[in-house]
Amino acid sequence: MRILHHIPLSPYSRKVRLVLNEKRLPFELKVEKLAERRPEYLALNPANTVPMLVEENGLSIPDSAVICEYLEEAYPDTPLLGRTLAERVEVRRLVAWFDGKFAAEVTRNLVHEKIIKRLVGRGNPDATALRAGYANIAGHLEYIGWLAETRKWLAGPTLSLADFAAAAQLSSLDYIGDVDWSLSPTTRDWYAKIKSRPSFRAILNDRVIGLNPPPHYADLDF
Amino acid sequence: MRILHHIPLSPYSRKVRLVLNEKRLPFELKVEKLAERRPEYLALNPANTVPMLVEENGLSIPDSAVICEYLEEAYPDTPLLGRTLAERVEVRRLVAWFDGKFAAEVTRNLVHEKIIKRLVGRGNPDATALRAGYANIAGHLEYIGWLAETRKWLAGPTLSLADFAAAAQLSSLDYIGDVDWSLSPTTRDWYAKIKSRPSFRAILNDRVIGLNPPPHYADLDF
Repeated sequence: MRILHHIPLSPYSRKVRLVLNEKRLPFELKVEKLAERRPEYLALNPANTVPMLVEENGLSIPDSAVICEYLEEAYPDTPLLGRTLAERVEVRRLVAWFDGKFAAEVTRNLVHEKIIKRLVGRGNPDATALRAGYANIAGHLEYIGWLAETRKWLAGPTLSLADFAAAAQLSSLDYIGDVDWSLSPTTRDWYAKIKSRPSFRAILNDRVIGLNPPPHYADLDF
Repeated sequence: MRILHHIPLSPYSRKVRLVLNEKRLPFELKVEKLAERRPEYLALNPANTVPMLVEENGLSIPDSAVICEYLEEAYPDTPLLGRTLAERVEVRRLVAWFDGKFAAEVTRNLVHEKIIKRLVGRGNPDATALRAGYANIAGHLEYIGWLAETRKWLAGPTLSLADFAAAAQLSSLDYIGDVDWSLSPTTRDWYAKIKSRPSFRAILNDRVIGLNPPPHYADLDF
């Protein structure tokens, strides 16, 4: 069986889970305790990061961006990167935006500080980071809203990896109650569409021990 | 004419220059003063980063990873991502390693702190960052040496984007004299091979105003 090493609230792990589900590729989830720095894990992925996908043929693929490019090439049905060169540039630009800029400015400051640091044993949240995260999320919600208003999906006329990259970040933030959806109704409407997809169900059923999500987290009509 | 917006010591800009040269795609360089946050630039690249490539047909492509994927699809001659799925995973894994981990642990702590902060008007180097950069580079040189010793090129039997990603980071560090090549003779031998390629020449001729590189920087037999 294909295995995805992950941690539950990692937005990068979630992005890959969404892609695997959209492409109808069965997989088993294994939580990787990164703080243990397991030698067997480091041998496959010296960067010691999640997610890492291990295919049934033994091929191991670390890094969510590498995994998504691999899945697109290995399983081209249900394409998620767009068709034309220009579409593919826009999808990848937005994926880089959410994986990079959004994550650094928002998710890292909130989810990483509050939860992932604890899970991997790296101490308490930093107050400056939390403040920055709350200050940054409003502008990002507005940008997503603008994209959703001017296009059918975030990167253009078709559902793409850009939507899953954005939704993965937001779903982790939503789990800890840090998304004020009233700030951008258009963003909320787009997220409601994504959240209703069967590929999202497992993520909405995720529970982190000792931390319950707010009631609207798994509600499709939030 | 194709235009690459860049800053001279940005390793990501250098990576794209190397790829464009290897693929024999002519381009014009324009230095982008990111601190000015030019509205025309932000309209094309709201992340306000370099490099950004603008094709003759007007297509603008920000983010070095997005640019490299685009160039591979648009100009498949001289392929740089490997042929088989497994090769492509390994090339992209290493590119992510150098663009992400190496850059965060080494280049950002040294080149960014010493030079790029000054160029973009963000103040003086942070001593803690400098110490971390010097402490981290040794392990990375060793890892590159191990790759170069066990393989013909860093990702396997063929020259790939992984070599250019690594060489781009190292060339920026070498410009400011921060690579102690005696730490890993295998890494030096591999770098000498890359540095001798015609695609590298323009980078070796780069000069940043007010900062001269050490004498060995442009020397092919350093």
